[in-house]
Amino acid sequence: MPPEDQKFPEPTPSGRHGKPFQAPRGARDFYPEDMARRQYIFDAWRKTALRHGFDEIDGPTFEHLDLYTVKSGEGIVNELFSFRRAGGETDFALRPEFTPTLARMVAAKANSLPKPIKWFSVGNFFRAERPQRGRLREFSQWNVDILGDESAEADAELIACCVGALEGFGLSSDQIRLRIGHRAAVESIFRRFEIAESNYGEWFALLDRKPKLEQAEYVNQAQRLGFDEKRMKELDAALDNATATTDDDLSSLASQLERTGVSAWTTIDLSIVRGLAYYTGMVFEVHETGGKERAIAGGGRYDNLVELFGGPPTPAVGFAMGDVVLSLVLQDRGLMPEGAELLDKIDARPDIFLISNGQEESEAALKPTVAELRRAGLHARHTHRTTRNVGKLLKEASSCHARYAVIIENAATCTLKNLETGEEKKDVPLDGLVVEMQG
Amino acid sequence: MPPEDQKFPEPTPSGRHGKPFQAPRGARDFYPEDMARRQYIFDAWRKTALRHGFDEIDGPTFEHLDLYTVKSGEGIVNELFSFRRAGGETDFALRPEFTPTLARMVAAKANSLPKPIKWFSVGNFFRAERPQRGRLREFSQWNVDILGDESAEADAELIACCVGALEGFGLSSDQIRLRIGHRAAVESIFRRFEIAESNYGEWFALLDRKPKLEQAEYVNQAQRLGFDEKRMKELDAALDNATATTDDDLSSLASQLERTGVSAWTTIDLSIVRGLAYYTGMVFEVHETGGKERAIAGGGRYDNLVELFGGPPTPAVGFAMGDVVLSLVLQDRGLMPEGAELLDKIDARPDIFLISNGQEESEAALKPTVAELRRAGLHARHTHRTTRNVGKLLKEASSCHARYAVIIENAATCTLKNLETGEEKKDVPLDGLVVEMQG
Repeated sequence: MPPEDQKFPEPTPSGRHGKPFQAPRGARDFYPEDMARRQYIFDAWRKTALRHGFDEIDGPTFEHLDLYTVKSGEGIVNELFSFRRAGGETDFALRPEFTPTLARMVAAKANSLPKPIKWFSVGNFFRAERPQRGRLREFSQWNVDILGDESAEADAELIACCVGALEGFGLSSDQIRLRIGHRAAVESIFRRFEIAESNYGEWFALLDRKPKLEQAEYVNQAQRLGFDEKRMKELDAALDNATATTDDDLSSLASQLERTGVSAWTTIDLSIVRGLAYYTGMVFEVHETGGKERAIAGGGRYDNLVELFGGPPTPAVGFAMGDVVLSLVLQDRGLMPEGAELLDKIDARPDIFLISNGQEESEAALKPTVAELRRAGLHARHTHRTTRNVGKLLKEASSCHARYAVIIENAATCTLKNLETGEEKKDVPLDGLVVEMQG
Repeated sequence: MPPEDQKFPEPTPSGRHGKPFQAPRGARDFYPEDMARRQYIFDAWRKTALRHGFDEIDGPTFEHLDLYTVKSGEGIVNELFSFRRAGGETDFALRPEFTPTLARMVAAKANSLPKPIKWFSVGNFFRAERPQRGRLREFSQWNVDILGDESAEADAELIACCVGALEGFGLSSDQIRLRIGHRAAVESIFRRFEIAESNYGEWFALLDRKPKLEQAEYVNQAQRLGFDEKRMKELDAALDNATATTDDDLSSLASQLERTGVSAWTTIDLSIVRGLAYYTGMVFEVHETGGKERAIAGGGRYDNLVELFGGPPTPAVGFAMGDVVLSLVLQDRGLMPEGAELLDKIDARPDIFLISNGQEESEAALKPTVAELRRAGLHARHTHRTTRNVGKLLKEASSCHARYAVIIENAATCTLKNLETGEEKKDVPLDGLVVEMQG
């Protein structure tokens, strides 16, 4: 059993023998602090996509199994959570990625949708692979796609949205690298080396696996595809040396990246080919500079997929960014906000925290005042403790990062305290508190 | 085959024979307009829960099957999407409801969590039932729970949050009724009728099904539980006549509802017992007044569930509101925002829509200006058409509900048009546009 499996054993599923139930292996429980961090990422993804002119969509969490066996490639098919209802005749699978759903949705309405289609989504995806650092069985992903525009301009606009998100998270172009390849440019090299078109798929799969293979194994697999070591080295050199000056596709891509103001983040690198079978043109991967984590994001052009799913020919380009690696990178670099800042970012910071001075009439006024503040649209919390130690209760107010504390002094008035400045306002009438807070 | 099945047949799963792929039966595709409406509901749920002092959490989309077979009741177990990986030994199920996950999460950390725990979540759930009006196989649900507080005050605080959401959607207390029952109050009547405690579960199930049963069938099933028609009528009368004056639990609940300012929305009705097996105290259902739709929301107290899942005894009360019935109600009543208002509500309205006057130097300035506006945090869209008909392009700007249109006049200047007032500002320098828009 590999060590990763020992780190993520399937927990005891049953609570029957006194052992508590646990989440399935590779799936996560999001307690409030975890959830606030996830929400921070989701909010940033949404805002970035909207700013770049994308509309949000979503599809089902499970699809017909066939949707994935058609074209996603073996890597994903082997990792599907698939299922069939007892007595049913249809096989389903939890979605392992979003692109097939997207292509299906575009195919179904292709004629009525104005082009270009610019869509994004934020959702959960599932792969039954071995859980390990940066890889879980359930994860969240941001998908961003432009369909109906075959230009390098669209490629660059997409990449600009990806860069916009990275920048928004506080990352900079010396910490992050977008390595951009191009399957069409690689194919033109394949043609020079007289590789048969029917073998392109296997060649892309080999080039994609290359960084993970020992040199001997790489040479061995190339030999199986009919290349001896010398010819393989020549092919490697041709791929290494391809630049914007030797290839038209790379040249127009490079100039569009320049024009969109993102070229400081990008490096042309034809060794990037991506694993999925459906890519046809530009492909890219986002990594930390010198980092050991898996890719933060990846994507590319898939001009044939909508047609394959029954729609008209529709050029398309897209990328996905997952939450797992991104979270690791942001936390390692101290870029994940905390405390009041985090709550501010996700609009979850309490406006006001109410306590009473412990007198009976103050206690009685607490809940009705809270209810009234909430009805007025304010985020109001209150203590559930019954101590008369106001100092302790003010600490409770601070620890939940409320902007203001209210100490109810009697049935009719309170003290309003700004918890950031310490400023206090005494004798504020309780029935004027809403106006005071909104003013 | 019942008529509902004909309305929702399983679509052809395969695109192989030229037929387009479709979403699975009972699952939905959310195109941008559908998604904006869903987002409107999700945002309102989130804001309401935060305002009422709840923290957001989430759990896995699938759980160990056992989590649901322990205590959710047969109704849900029969409708589970359950699955097992090829070669695996563990049975999983797509979550049909959130409460078991919540109880599991609380049980796992019960000792370190300050009480009361006030949590909410917004997520997708799955039931393999026959799709029909108001019921789908995948749906979204807002779950709101208070744990560690056994008081009627907590029951009322929870109900106030539910009412807060309904009010926020524009519904009023003459359109909506929260019918509130109480299992403890019903049990005290059961005791009066000398029903054995071991039969309470069957009795609750029968009372829950009563509105759906023919009278003869109801009497027949009561007989099987040992009650003749006369005794059954006496029990019905006792349930009908129970009020706050005859029962202590109902009395303190009623006074807390009054105190929290929500009693105009509520009616005490002991015929409400809810279907799930785990409820122990107050239970409630939310319906349109005189409406024919299924329940908009429902919930109740489940004081034993956390302990059942391996945690310490922890009183708990919660409710869930689904998106499917709620959407039908809001749309039927014209309460679902549209167009610019909808985009405003979900913060998705474009700040600015850029077009060029068709001159070459204006065209060239378009994309770089858009990129700069987006980098500055503005939601900027632009035309992809190349007509010189500025009037047509301005219509495009209006139809996407942008606040402003920018007509690029040459390489350096533009006209800025407020699309709400029609007001125009000419000769705005392109490099001052960001400042102009932010000012």
